Amino acid sequence: MIKVIDLNSDLGESFGQWTMGNDDAVLEIVSSANIACGFHAGSPDGILKTLKAAKQHNVAIGAHVSYPDLVGFGRRNMDIASDELTADVIYQIGALQGLAKAVGLSVTYVKPHGALYNTIAHDKRQALAVIEAILAVDPQLVLVALAGSPLITLAKEKGLRVIAEAFADRAYHADGSLVSRKKEGAVLHDPKHVAQRMLQLVQEGGVESIEGIFTAIEADSICVHGDSPDAVTLAQSVKEILINHGVSIKPFAPLSLKNEVQK
Amino acid sequence: MIKVIDLNSDLGESFGQWTMGNDDAVLEIVSSANIACGFHAGSPDGILKTLKAAKQHNVAIGAHVSYPDLVGFGRRNMDIASDELTADVIYQIGALQGLAKAVGLSVTYVKPHGALYNTIAHDKRQALAVIEAILAVDPQLVLVALAGSPLITLAKEKGLRVIAEAFADRAYHADGSLVSRKKEGAVLHDPKHVAQRMLQLVQEGGVESIEGIFTAIEADSICVHGDSPDAVTLAQSVKEILINHGVSIKPFAPLSLKNEVQK
Amino acid sequence: MIKVIDLNSDLGESFGQWTMGNDDAVLEIVSSANIACGFHAGSPDGILKTLKAAKQHNVAIGAHVSYPDLVGFGRRNMDIASDELTADVIYQIGALQGLAKAVGLSVTYVKPHGALYNTIAHDKRQALAVIEAILAVDPQLVLVALAGSPLITLAKEKGLRVIAEAFADRAYHADGSLVSRKKEGAVLHDPKHVAQRMLQLVQEGGVESIEGIFTAIEADSICVHGDSPDAVTLAQSVKEILINHGVSIKPFAPLSLKNEVQK
Amino acid sequence: MIKVIDLNSDLGESFGQWTMGNDDAVLEIVSSANIACGFHAGSPDGILKTLKAAKQHNVAIGAHVSYPDLVGFGRRNMDIASDELTADVIYQIGALQGLAKAVGLSVTYVKPHGALYNTIAHDKRQALAVIEAILAVDPQLVLVALAGSPLITLAKEKGLRVIAEAFADRAYHADGSLVSRKKEGAVLHDPKHVAQRMLQLVQEGGVESIEGIFTAIEADSICVHGDSPDAVTLAQSVKEILINHGVSIKPFAPLSLKNEVQK
Repeated sequence: MIKVIDLNSDLGESFGQWTMGNDDAVLEIVSSANIACGFHAGSPDGILKTLKAAKQHNVAIGAHVSYPDLVGFGRRNMDIASDELTADVIYQIGALQGLAKAVGLSVTYVKPHGALYNTIAHDKRQALAVIEAILAVDPQLVLVALAGSPLITLAKEKGLRVIAEAFADRAYHADGSLVSRKKEGAVLHDPKHVAQRMLQLVQEGGVESIEGIFTAIEADSICVHGDSPDAVTLAQSVKEILINHGVSIKPFAPLSLKNEVQK
Repeated sequence: MIKVIDLNSDLGESFGQWTMGNDDAVLEIVSSANIACGFHAGSPDGILKTLKAAKQHNVAIGAHVSYPDLVGFGRRNMDIASDELTADVIYQIGALQGLAKAVGLSVTYVKPHGALYNTIAHDKRQALAVIEAILAVDPQLVLVALAGSPLITLAKEKGLRVIAEAFADRAYHADGSLVSRKKEGAVLHDPKHVAQRMLQLVQEGGVESIEGIFTAIEADSICVHGDSPDAVTLAQSVKEILINHGVSIKPFAPLSLKNEVQK
Repeated sequence: MIKVIDLNSDLGESFGQWTMGNDDAVLEIVSSANIACGFHAGSPDGILKTLKAAKQHNVAIGAHVSYPDLVGFGRRNMDIASDELTADVIYQIGALQGLAKAVGLSVTYVKPHGALYNTIAHDKRQALAVIEAILAVDPQLVLVALAGSPLITLAKEKGLRVIAEAFADRAYHADGSLVSRKKEGAVLHDPKHVAQRMLQLVQEGGVESIEGIFTAIEADSICVHGDSPDAVTLAQSVKEILINHGVSIKPFAPLSLKNEVQK
Repeated sequence: MIKVIDLNSDLGESFGQWTMGNDDAVLEIVSSANIACGFHAGSPDGILKTLKAAKQHNVAIGAHVSYPDLVGFGRRNMDIASDELTADVIYQIGALQGLAKAVGLSVTYVKPHGALYNTIAHDKRQALAVIEAILAVDPQLVLVALAGSPLITLAKEKGLRVIAEAFADRAYHADGSLVSRKKEGAVLHDPKHVAQRMLQLVQEGGVESIEGIFTAIEADSICVHGDSPDAVTLAQSVKEILINHGVSIKPFAPLSLKNEVQK
């Protein structure tokens, strides 16, 4: 049996004259690119450049939607009304769809960013607002969610296709939840160790928890980072070990949606 | 022979808690709604509300794209690079397309706003950047341009469908150009006088210029305003006189684009 | 014995082309003006206009500092880091001080706005961040806080002068807390009733609670609004009844700070 | 006779999570720090960090004021009304004064940034708007202007103290004007060559122009950059050669203003 997994990463996070991340290096590694949509990062000109590079690498494109918080990089929880959140998410998906269409690509999935990602993993009200936005724009869009989170069931109930993701560089508790970044050992740095864990995730369906026992993690995508040279090295290590063990790296989402009119 | 003309107006220009214009009153009058896309005005939640109202009134929807200048309401000339302008316009069209799709509407035309509108009427570099953006997103989108401006020929050469518009409340020179707002008599306020002029425009293909002689104005749409009670009254006067003289008020653009996948 | 009270209101909340509130009408009524600083509302040009009008009316000027959330008008709770909040508050106070100095005024107090106001009434971490900001810019600045809130004691302990304020149009519980806006009867609309309550507040040191019993409220300022014609009428009613009963309306803060170099 | 010159550089240009420049390295070199004020770059938290570092290095602090254009980094000409520009500049100076006061520093000069800098060098209307802003906030603030530009005379006429600056890495024409960046040879990269030129500037009052003849440049400050490792190296070379030839590097402006109340 052939094992398949997706590798995803956050891209397009430069803004105007400010550069962030090494999009070109990351695009060599991942199969899915979460593209900033202008609310936490990403100016239109920069997003367009990243999309053109993504096209050359044949990766799937997702809308990395966020709270409207540029100065806080979308990392601050915000008590936003449901109507506003729904409209904000639609706006961002639409903007990225426009830019993607301009370079001949399709947005095929949505991955909420930062504080929004963490909040909707558990907060039903905000989760429903995001789900409603996706359904309104295109129900074929896949939602990427935290493995093991209540969001997964909720979004499936509402009719969305959902993909669970694991984090390559994060420790997990025995119950499958992420160890808080505030705790020691939450973030893993050793490329070999991380790569080995991700191989285990794909082959055995879980990793060793911080409590020392195996915990099952159901995930179809692994999130890697590219915002530092070390992060890129770590992502490369994960990819190499997987490929060396016969795992195929493929996008979970199609490169374009059903029924889409091709130019 | 039945005369047909379009009436267009700027809508969705509220922002967050700030209200601007009377969208509901204007939607009773016009056949085409230029919707703010967030760069000079329009927050996603408010745009969505305006789109829902527009749908009920069965008006055509256009992207009212602007320079990125919220505090200046897009009214300040900006020396923006072509790549940045193209990306900004694509982003705005896409964002509005997303919001429109969410309420079951299609964006069928693009009308640049404020300083961008005035600049590209004559500035070839910026005009080409806007044209490129429209072609990249969807070449079926119609461009609304100042009657008599060089932009019209340029955009047609590049393959766009272009509609020329006249301004109901503005005086014209004998050469067909607008009288600068800085000059006395540039803006007309008398509803009866304005309505009579617009009837003349439709019936005779022109109006009396500020120099006192008839000037031909080729226009398929008339721009009216709704940002004050007086403006709404003026717009109503224009519509009434046209209808009373057998002129049909219809959108120049279709309500949805060819080949579009209907939900 | 002569009774004295301050009336304060939020001003300068227009933004660019968007108008909010009737600053001129409100300046006829209040003794203290909470001026937006650009983070929830207020563009520099508009703030300057409001400051000039405030100078003519001889009212005290306070910095109405907010979370950085223009589209949400500072009304959404935000989980902002302490360092960032402190710097944001200093920045806003400084900006207003600069504009005030340009028209010959002094900022003499600080009143947090919206969600920040409500949060720091009880949240010690964010409260300390705001207090630290005020102490860093000028420890003579007075802090305006919700009557009865823990913030008052905390800020006094840290060395700030604090003024408690009551809300003219809000119902109170028997324990002195505000009735939540989500509950019926939370907001009062009858000008005569509101005016009578505020007279009682000044004369007897409290009002009748929603539970029907008298509740003591220690307040040196009363907050009134000016964002609608009804609000202005209500504010006028409060002022009239107070003056008719011999209460003097005066700012709690001096019009300029000690040791300040006068031009 | 002891020669004295100032070295200035742009700092505080990070924004939120985005880093720009090496402020710590540059502060080892310069005597004056032009600090971003939030309109083209600089979030309050980051500005505060840069100010604290500047204090440790005992450099003079200037407000690096800009057009309101974050995504364009203040590099795009903007046709802004005089009232708006004046208010924007006052706001920025005030904000920086607040942050500076919080760390025990004083803003002692103003250097316009990017497109605003270039525009007011020659555009009298916008120049007067900036001059008015400085006079309104504090007439003791020194204005830094392009050597040889009409702005210098204009600002002096209006009562400002003005300092002319030269650019270390730029070529000059024989008439003392800068060679446009669009022309070959406009930007100089060789540290030794640049250092030698700046020594000549200080010792002889001018440099060799791109036309090959000596051109006089009256300047009391030299602008160096720190936005790349090469730029830092170049700045170090300039400083070294000057010091090795007995030139003293000192701020043109005092570290605090006259009459200022010290805490």
